[in-house]
Amino acid sequence: MITQMSGEDCLTLLYKVPTGRLACALHDQPYVVPIQFAAEPGHLYSFTTLGQKVEWMRQNPRVSVLVDRIDHPECWESVIITGLYEEISPNNGYEGQRDHAWSLLQSNASWWEPGSQQTRIGDTDRPLVPVFFRIAIVEMTGRRCRGDEHAEQPTEPTFFERMIRRIGSRT
Amino acid sequence: MITQMSGEDCLTLLYKVPTGRLACALHDQPYVVPIQFAAEPGHLYSFTTLGQKVEWMRQNPRVSVLVDRIDHPECWESVIITGLYEEISPNNGYEGQRDHAWSLLQSNASWWEPGSQQTRIGDTDRPLVPVFFRIAIVEMTGRRCRGDEHAEQPTEPTFFERMIRRIGSRT
Repeated sequence: MITQMSGEDCLTLLYKVPTGRLACALHDQPYVVPIQFAAEPGHLYSFTTLGQKVEWMRQNPRVSVLVDRIDHPECWESVIITGLYEEISPNNGYEGQRDHAWSLLQSNASWWEPGSQQTRIGDTDRPLVPVFFRIAIVEMTGRRCRGDEHAEQPTEPTFFERMIRRIGSRT
Repeated sequence: MITQMSGEDCLTLLYKVPTGRLACALHDQPYVVPIQFAAEPGHLYSFTTLGQKVEWMRQNPRVSVLVDRIDHPECWESVIITGLYEEISPNNGYEGQRDHAWSLLQSNASWWEPGSQQTRIGDTDRPLVPVFFRIAIVEMTGRRCRGDEHAEQPTEPTFFERMIRRIGSRT
């Protein structure tokens, strides 16, 4: 049984799952990539390096973000956000927002690693130009599916929570 | 260290991970949703029910599909496909393709469940109109990140493989 999630339930998922998939589009060609983010009501904050998605979003700020948690084919939650890309740059009066983004993102210790790791494609190092941005949430809808056996066990650790523990115990 | 994946490595990921994120776009507004699929060289086959994504892809067949496996922030693989939506319908001479899609999709026992489960949004049951489709792969690129400790342990079960075992042991 698939049901709609409340706005509060959607936000709860955004707080629990800091990884999403961001789709942008240029001339009606979509492009979807993984992102890590920190959420607060109304916005997702993130960080990346200069590349195709930033170049496209600067030209067309309309984006879609999917955040989901699939515990099982019959037990999942999925939130879809329609939003607008807003770049946080030291050159456009957004210093306060950048400090705010930095503060939020620091709460997720690994958030910056995909963007900051050295990238080697072929024999050429790609230059790394950091870009802070946020997604202003225009619309947010969520759906969840709960199999009966899962609905009766709300306190069982989720897929995500189990993996957090497992990863934690390995390092 | 992030490196480019070969075409063969990309296909291997598509065979291992039957869940992806499909982005379509209409009038430069992107829309991203989860999909389950069966891959073969050149195509992804899938099944859904009539809704926004099908309505949009019928108007603009250009899509992007992301398939990723994130074991750890420093150990992941990500494949991005640029492709074209092709609907497989009994009314347009695609019967052979539909049988082929059915055969491929049957290899993933849970592939059809999200599409075929009864959907209840509010108090209204949404009618379920099945749609078979495939994505013709126009371009496919992949990147992977391997932390040193992971590079030394290629035979360790992956995040995905561990979860398959865990889910299997619960049911």
